[in-house]
Amino acid sequence: MAKEITSREENYSQWYNDIVKKAGLADSSAVRGCMVIKPYGYAIWEKIRDQLDKMFKETGHVNAYFPLFVPKSLFEAEEKNAEGFAKECAIVTHYRLKNDPENKGKLIVDPDAKLEEELIVRPTSEAIIWNTYRDWIQSHRDLPILINQWANVVRWEMRTRPFLRTAEFLWQEGHTAHATSQEAIAESKLIHDLYAEFAESFMAMPVIKGYKSENERFAGAEETYTIEALMQDGKALQAGTSHFLGQNFAKAFNVTFSNAENEKEYVWATSWGVSTRLIGALIMTHSDDEGLVLPPKLAPIQVVIVPIPKPEPKLIEKAEEISLALKDLGISVKIDIDDTKRPGFKFAEYEMKGIPIRLGIGNRDLENNTIEVARRDTKEKLSVELDQVVPYIEKLLVEIQENLYSRSRSYRDDHITKIDTFESFKEVLENKGGFLSCHWDGTSETEDKIKEETKATIRCIPLDADYEDGKCVYSGKPSKRRVIFAKAY
Amino acid sequence: MAKEITSREENYSQWYNDIVKKAGLADSSAVRGCMVIKPYGYAIWEKIRDQLDKMFKETGHVNAYFPLFVPKSLFEAEEKNAEGFAKECAIVTHYRLKNDPENKGKLIVDPDAKLEEELIVRPTSEAIIWNTYRDWIQSHRDLPILINQWANVVRWEMRTRPFLRTAEFLWQEGHTAHATSQEAIAESKLIHDLYAEFAESFMAMPVIKGYKSENERFAGAEETYTIEALMQDGKALQAGTSHFLGQNFAKAFNVTFSNAENEKEYVWATSWGVSTRLIGALIMTHSDDEGLVLPPKLAPIQVVIVPIPKPEPKLIEKAEEISLALKDLGISVKIDIDDTKRPGFKFAEYEMKGIPIRLGIGNRDLENNTIEVARRDTKEKLSVELDQVVPYIEKLLVEIQENLYSRSRSYRDDHITKIDTFESFKEVLENKGGFLSCHWDGTSETEDKIKEETKATIRCIPLDADYEDGKCVYSGKPSKRRVIFAKAY
Repeated sequence: MAKEITSREENYSQWYNDIVKKAGLADSSAVRGCMVIKPYGYAIWEKIRDQLDKMFKETGHVNAYFPLFVPKSLFEAEEKNAEGFAKECAIVTHYRLKNDPENKGKLIVDPDAKLEEELIVRPTSEAIIWNTYRDWIQSHRDLPILINQWANVVRWEMRTRPFLRTAEFLWQEGHTAHATSQEAIAESKLIHDLYAEFAESFMAMPVIKGYKSENERFAGAEETYTIEALMQDGKALQAGTSHFLGQNFAKAFNVTFSNAENEKEYVWATSWGVSTRLIGALIMTHSDDEGLVLPPKLAPIQVVIVPIPKPEPKLIEKAEEISLALKDLGISVKIDIDDTKRPGFKFAEYEMKGIPIRLGIGNRDLENNTIEVARRDTKEKLSVELDQVVPYIEKLLVEIQENLYSRSRSYRDDHITKIDTFESFKEVLENKGGFLSCHWDGTSETEDKIKEETKATIRCIPLDADYEDGKCVYSGKPSKRRVIFAKAY
Repeated sequence: MAKEITSREENYSQWYNDIVKKAGLADSSAVRGCMVIKPYGYAIWEKIRDQLDKMFKETGHVNAYFPLFVPKSLFEAEEKNAEGFAKECAIVTHYRLKNDPENKGKLIVDPDAKLEEELIVRPTSEAIIWNTYRDWIQSHRDLPILINQWANVVRWEMRTRPFLRTAEFLWQEGHTAHATSQEAIAESKLIHDLYAEFAESFMAMPVIKGYKSENERFAGAEETYTIEALMQDGKALQAGTSHFLGQNFAKAFNVTFSNAENEKEYVWATSWGVSTRLIGALIMTHSDDEGLVLPPKLAPIQVVIVPIPKPEPKLIEKAEEISLALKDLGISVKIDIDDTKRPGFKFAEYEMKGIPIRLGIGNRDLENNTIEVARRDTKEKLSVELDQVVPYIEKLLVEIQENLYSRSRSYRDDHITKIDTFESFKEVLENKGGFLSCHWDGTSETEDKIKEETKATIRCIPLDADYEDGKCVYSGKPSKRRVIFAKAY
């Protein structure tokens, strides 16, 4: 093996870090909690971004760009939102450095260049955007506004992990403005559905769709819709949220419109986002002890062709012929012409990087008119006739995508456990993990106590839950439906 | 007219601001010097970005992402670079706000949350990137590194103008690492050529290719290659720069590699960037007193179809038929189905937004089997047979692109003036403006004095200048070639 990583069984957390490092996805940086997204990791983000961007545009959204900084007076305007982010934000206080008179070649902050008002590096952009929307919205004819932004944001998190929780991360944030509550709710649900569709069809990652309890709701939202995925270690990961913000931001920033009857009303809002965290979700949904496993639809390179034992002209020529035919079908291909590494090393490298299909092509294969096809997901290898390989690969990519989904779906389904007593809650949480489907009395107090005793939180109240009479798993009080508890990333 | 703007003759600067505002490109924000890029402005940036990204990838570059923040100790490591940016940078000093005990609902910076080391919001990323490259580069086999980043940067400029000079702007910054000086120089020239090709073929904006004098060189560079464009008011605009950085950053950050002989050497570097400033350049190269004029290759909407006098079903049906046929050719089309505005208003609106071609379709046209085609660039209108309109438009888009280039090229060529005396230098600069091609004695002192007396600077030393004996236009000292002076944005 070219590169060894810790096994999942041995140490899941270390396994994750090893994959991030050895698949070349990200690196640490000199800035606390901030990562460097390396070219291969960024290429995955580009696939995610391009697909989501297409889906946003198909549903009528446009992109725009708002400032990185939020003046403190705007930041504090929506109180709940401010409270939610005030404790972990980066604050710009000065705008100039000067030479340190006591240390040649060193710089110090120039005390004469203090800002009159501090600027917060955006942890999210509701404040700066709604302050702008006030100027853009006068009449109902100015609505809806359906804007998305691709941007970096900063949250000064204390404990960070690459992709999953970083001080700076990349994301998209949609911010829409509507004339009615109904329209805004419909928008937040539309995006909720879009996120679920993206997670399942592109990431091959099953998700539970639901809404958040009050404790877990976005600061400033009336309702937070979420998609919740389950990682291989039994912990949940919140993969995307869509918020119905009511008129909270319109009121905080005084954004009104004249309705058709020429009466002033406050505007209704939504916001929604997914981030580079999705790369962490991808890793922990599909990968194995050999490295990353990527669903074909998000793999920067879908097929790699390795000439065996080395890149001779005749083999490269054949590889190029196959590559061209695959590219015509929109399949991305790399031919490995590096002659300094042996095939075994390369195989391990491409397994580490999660390339869905590897083709090995040697002289004996050519003579027999065959080629070796290796699947990353099942690690199966088989010999395919050369003139059949292109259509075979086209079908195989679809099959791998489906297999990854059904595999993670089975795992997820096997890890939704109906729980009716707090004893079994603790036991299952400890030993099996996963989603715990339980009755809950609907109070924050109970949720807090369960979190305190077990670290589990309510991931969501599923939209498709049946109504049934039951008793809260903790307090024994009556409940009408089950909610999903889990430990979460 | 739906919206009137100041004429160029009356006030060029106000005309520019009017276009930015009334074409819906950008808006001011609550943050000093930062703009909001509105959806239409951002759509132009997406066209620019996507085309450049394609060209970067075709030349072997990959994207990555580095942190927004640069710790002060890294920022100051390359002294010239630090000196160039220290006086205008945003500095993060704290990471938490707390409730103001004296003002309920207000927040103040928590003095207990002071960072041990201040963070500079990147004005450019050489420092943070070269600090990372140290870990990535050991051997000559790790080179070259050909990385680009799409990012926001912040420079605390005192006087700002939308797109042209803003405190925060969007850009791409390439940062490459090479084993030899020759390779690094070749890379910086490759990108210089790529930028010129983009400016001329896509922006339809002629540029002079050259390199900077020492005064105007990028802080930390050994050589800065530039493309210089000429705006309609006779002022120059630096549209893109590509820097050969020598080993300056490798030395500052101790980045070495073992060469083939296993000896340690410092790595050679380039960096290069273009920004949202290009949108300002686009505006001031082509637009007129009716509004924005966009080259078809960068227009978010290339063709708009307006049913006349209003969007009746029969007209919409025909418009959709034409639209589909155009979209099949990769042409972007909007059909205006708004029935609350009159055609005259819409025409003015699309002129303001610079849509290259407008089609007017009415019942009488349908009867006559014709359609009205209006060009934005020349404002010509003519009637085209309906069944010819699709191929006609395909050709016309090419013609408009070429016409815009040749028009701005003629203007530019007419505004390169050979100057041999300082009297005529001042006279031409004052009355005609444009590029002044003059002999210069090669000293910073002379350049400084000319700048002081006239505000003109050396835009570049053109790569294609002939060698000829002459005398410096200011000092009379001998000179071997002419350089380009101008007032600049």
